[in-house]
Amino acid sequence: MRYSIGIDLGGTNLRAAAIGESGQLLKKVSGSTPVEAGPESVIADMARSAEQLRAEFGRDTLAGIGVGVPGNIDMKTGTVLAWNNVPAFNGYPTRDQLAKRLSTPVILENDANCAALGEQWMGAGRGVDDLVMLALGTGIGGGIISRGKILHGHIGMAAELGHITVVPNGNPCGCGNRGCVEKHASATAIGAMARNLGLGANLTAQDVAELAAQGDERARSVYRSAGESLGIALASLINIFNAPLYLLGGGVSAAWDHFAPAMLTEVERRSLTYRLTRATTRIERATLGGDGGLYGAASLPLR
Amino acid sequence: MRYSIGIDLGGTNLRAAAIGESGQLLKKVSGSTPVEAGPESVIADMARSAEQLRAEFGRDTLAGIGVGVPGNIDMKTGTVLAWNNVPAFNGYPTRDQLAKRLSTPVILENDANCAALGEQWMGAGRGVDDLVMLALGTGIGGGIISRGKILHGHIGMAAELGHITVVPNGNPCGCGNRGCVEKHASATAIGAMARNLGLGANLTAQDVAELAAQGDERARSVYRSAGESLGIALASLINIFNAPLYLLGGGVSAAWDHFAPAMLTEVERRSLTYRLTRATTRIERATLGGDGGLYGAASLPLR
Repeated sequence: MRYSIGIDLGGTNLRAAAIGESGQLLKKVSGSTPVEAGPESVIADMARSAEQLRAEFGRDTLAGIGVGVPGNIDMKTGTVLAWNNVPAFNGYPTRDQLAKRLSTPVILENDANCAALGEQWMGAGRGVDDLVMLALGTGIGGGIISRGKILHGHIGMAAELGHITVVPNGNPCGCGNRGCVEKHASATAIGAMARNLGLGANLTAQDVAELAAQGDERARSVYRSAGESLGIALASLINIFNAPLYLLGGGVSAAWDHFAPAMLTEVERRSLTYRLTRATTRIERATLGGDGGLYGAASLPLR
Repeated sequence: MRYSIGIDLGGTNLRAAAIGESGQLLKKVSGSTPVEAGPESVIADMARSAEQLRAEFGRDTLAGIGVGVPGNIDMKTGTVLAWNNVPAFNGYPTRDQLAKRLSTPVILENDANCAALGEQWMGAGRGVDDLVMLALGTGIGGGIISRGKILHGHIGMAAELGHITVVPNGNPCGCGNRGCVEKHASATAIGAMARNLGLGANLTAQDVAELAAQGDERARSVYRSAGESLGIALASLINIFNAPLYLLGGGVSAAWDHFAPAMLTEVERRSLTYRLTRATTRIERATLGGDGGLYGAASLPLR
């Protein structure tokens, strides 16, 4: 059986999976090197993980390796353009170094784009040619599939959906803007809002969701506020793309019940396109969870 | 020489042009029927205009007829889905009726999409495969060309760029939203802002531009405000598309000098993508003026 290997960089260390061409998850492994160790060490770690999988599932049937990276990718050169947390990768020939080491084709892709591709392949987006994905994590990543293909933009920087302005004079963002949706609806933003409301100094988004589930009104208002901000961004995205599917993934999406009602109210109110196309426009949770990126990365050599 | 006929509906009455396959404007004519007269009368008027041009430039070399309509188009059925000012067109088989009458292929397209196509063919977008166009008129229309083709969305409602939210609790819009960019930067919005500042009850955007050119500080502030709103929308569009070209057309774009500085300041501040890709990202005025839509409509049968 033909298969490929998907690698998900980022977080604490890498994860890799061998996935069959029909989407069967054959095996998952984790690397041992923190991504902060820099490109040489991480590439060695990727190579070890891939070799381990290849030893088990065969060299001849391996279609290639796809790698999801939390940064912007220059698709022509196969380098990371901007990975803020680990600048050592920026400009490093990650793709070619790994390909040389393994004598196998390698494709790099942004991690949120991978999540969108994964959902399209084996998740909530099966059979859909156009979808917009928001990955709600510590930041908010975006992935856009248009006419079956990732929308990369002319320098691989498209779909920076976390930086859509939702509050013109809102919270300052590292990108220089104020009021980016990721400053009002990411896990980080949810923690900060909870802190500002006196709920606690170091609450995670999940902690706040648990408080909301217990009926804490301040915690609920935090998620309502995040939902409203997401709704403003989504309404604009619907007015721009008129896609049949909008997906929300990432850790925060687990708190769907806490933010989705306010989000959908806002979308309904703000997007005539949504109201006119409700029968054919879906706004849903991603279904692959943390594995979406692995599926998407693995799908790259199989496309 | 092969040629086609472009028709621009909307405004007071229709305009039509015969345009050669290399973009030579052969002849322009105007119809005599107001669009409010309804589909039958307007289709008869379109047919007369097209027949007049065809009689002059030949039946055998006519590639077809393209029609730009200020509404959303169902591309499959060739009907207008929503033309707010002239609801009689909604659902009427405009394309097929005209095609039958003339025994010639007819293609309908949204007018802002036509403007984008026209600019791509013979205007500021020549040689560009990806561009985003804002048509600043009484409202704000949008056209997106992605990988060489208009982005239609799944029901022909994509690129409603005038309804991107730029002020979450801003001016109410007919679409149900508040703070749509067209309520803060269209010709109508500019007139309303001038009125609110006591500049005069019935000033057009052009009147306000003339006052601004004479140094009137309130008129200048109106255009600055419009520019800021456009900048917020543009920054989000740049973060979403990472396209090489963003064009502003329509009547208001003539006041470029009055709104563009504030707009570009806002884009610069709000879009890291813009700052990182400045060398390859252009934000410019459309160059075909009121004829952009005619060129774009005429380009449809030639594509």
